[in-house]
Amino acid sequence: MTPDLSHEITLSPAFHDLDPMDVVWHGNYVRYLEQARCALLARFGYDYPAMRDSGYAWPVVDLRLRYVRPLVYGQLVNVRATIVEWENRLKIDYLLRDAGTGERLSKGYSVQVAVDMRSGEMCYECPPVLCQRLGMQR
Amino acid sequence: MTPDLSHEITLSPAFHDLDPMDVVWHGNYVRYLEQARCALLARFGYDYPAMRDSGYAWPVVDLRLRYVRPLVYGQLVNVRATIVEWENRLKIDYLLRDAGTGERLSKGYSVQVAVDMRSGEMCYECPPVLCQRLGMQR
Amino acid sequence: MTPDLSHEITLSPAFHDLDPMDVVWHGNYVRYLEQARCALLARFGYDYPAMRDSGYAWPVVDLRLRYVRPLVYGQLVNVRATIVEWENRLKIDYLLRDAGTGERLSKGYSVQVAVDMRSGEMCYECPPVLCQRLGMQR
Amino acid sequence: MTPDLSHEITLSPAFHDLDPMDVVWHGNYVRYLEQARCALLARFGYDYPAMRDSGYAWPVVDLRLRYVRPLVYGQLVNVRATIVEWENRLKIDYLLRDAGTGERLSKGYSVQVAVDMRSGEMCYECPPVLCQRLGMQR
Repeated sequence: MTPDLSHEITLSPAFHDLDPMDVVWHGNYVRYLEQARCALLARFGYDYPAMRDSGYAWPVVDLRLRYVRPLVYGQLVNVRATIVEWENRLKIDYLLRDAGTGERLSKGYSVQVAVDMRSGEMCYECPPVLCQRLGMQR
Repeated sequence: MTPDLSHEITLSPAFHDLDPMDVVWHGNYVRYLEQARCALLARFGYDYPAMRDSGYAWPVVDLRLRYVRPLVYGQLVNVRATIVEWENRLKIDYLLRDAGTGERLSKGYSVQVAVDMRSGEMCYECPPVLCQRLGMQR
Repeated sequence: MTPDLSHEITLSPAFHDLDPMDVVWHGNYVRYLEQARCALLARFGYDYPAMRDSGYAWPVVDLRLRYVRPLVYGQLVNVRATIVEWENRLKIDYLLRDAGTGERLSKGYSVQVAVDMRSGEMCYECPPVLCQRLGMQR
Repeated sequence: MTPDLSHEITLSPAFHDLDPMDVVWHGNYVRYLEQARCALLARFGYDYPAMRDSGYAWPVVDLRLRYVRPLVYGQLVNVRATIVEWENRLKIDYLLRDAGTGERLSKGYSVQVAVDMRSGEMCYECPPVLCQRLGMQR
């Protein structure tokens, strides 16, 4: 059985996230995705300090964001992160919804690859530690 | 004759742009793209205040970034922004290169659509002001 | 009786808040203070949208931060904001403590003044709306 | 003779630095100060990588900002950083002026102390490397 590879956080835009149009500046979504991704990976015991301790860095090599509706101050927003690839690279999909109405606000994805911190070499397959932490058979 | 629709800026990562891996945090690239985009649009007299004065907001609706090599402190980086679509939407491509070696560091694009600030309606064609400012025939 | 003019939030530093020393970059504390301040003012029905609706902007005119111990990834941090002046200006004190041990991590203050949004004039006394919202007699 | 211990940079606020009041969000000034400080220290061959190579981290332990006039998009701003203490701690004063009119916009200071990166101990005197780089007799 495949474990549930998704996790949802709820956040609310801060004043300093807003731009002169009184909506969240588009670049700040990258922080929101990261918060959801870190919470997801922490659930599997593989967030940033665990990655480093395992000898791998996981830089983001590809990022996409599609903005559907603006986010505003005071709004409650659910950010769901779901791991959709874990063999050769770690791909995570994101969906932002209004916490009250369920309306889709934005979606995106990130792709990370493992880099061996001793050699500095990029890994063309995800190292076994990822599957182990995710509770997956390879 | 088509005018040259590209512009290049040179920047250097700040200390506060770095993450614990001692490279620029991937979300900060969005600020770099915006700096290049604003400089490009300012050259055509259509940066943020001119957009607002023309009655249109131009929210980013799609953003993609592909990271090839990390950016480091002290590095000089050229960011080239090129307008590649202007009829139904404003699409801009970005290329980041090392200013010394010319090596490709990252690339990406952004897509913006016009929103009529009075009605709040999204425009399915770019308003004439964009082509006028870009010096294009439609 | 003076109402309780303080409020505490708990937060945890994000990966993107860290710098190459693996601690929170000092400038990011300004965001943490703002989160505590907004939560405090929201409790009194006077956060950013209510300020704007009341006809006043409240720019920060003075800010101080004293850093005692670094903040690290995964740490739970309490940020307490307390209103200490409200007559001629709005002064708020902040105290950051480790949520587990209670150890003092950082402290600071911010000072805001009211600006009448119609005239653009700075007010030399806080407008009555502030005391009303705070439940204070003047 | 005391060497000139100040340095000035010129910058222009980016769109992403603005808040809903259409002025630079107060927390972003911390980035501007850091840019001026790094440029100043780089002139003396003692910016972030040189600090690390010398075996010392220099965390900011005190920061103050006084905001006089708002900064707006398109404005050219001079940020002058001046070293005013270097014996027991590194204190730097900052002055922001409009590049066109010379009007004072903001001022502030930062205080840094040396931390020995091997022991993790704070130094109660600045290590000799600082004075050497600044070209000072102690």
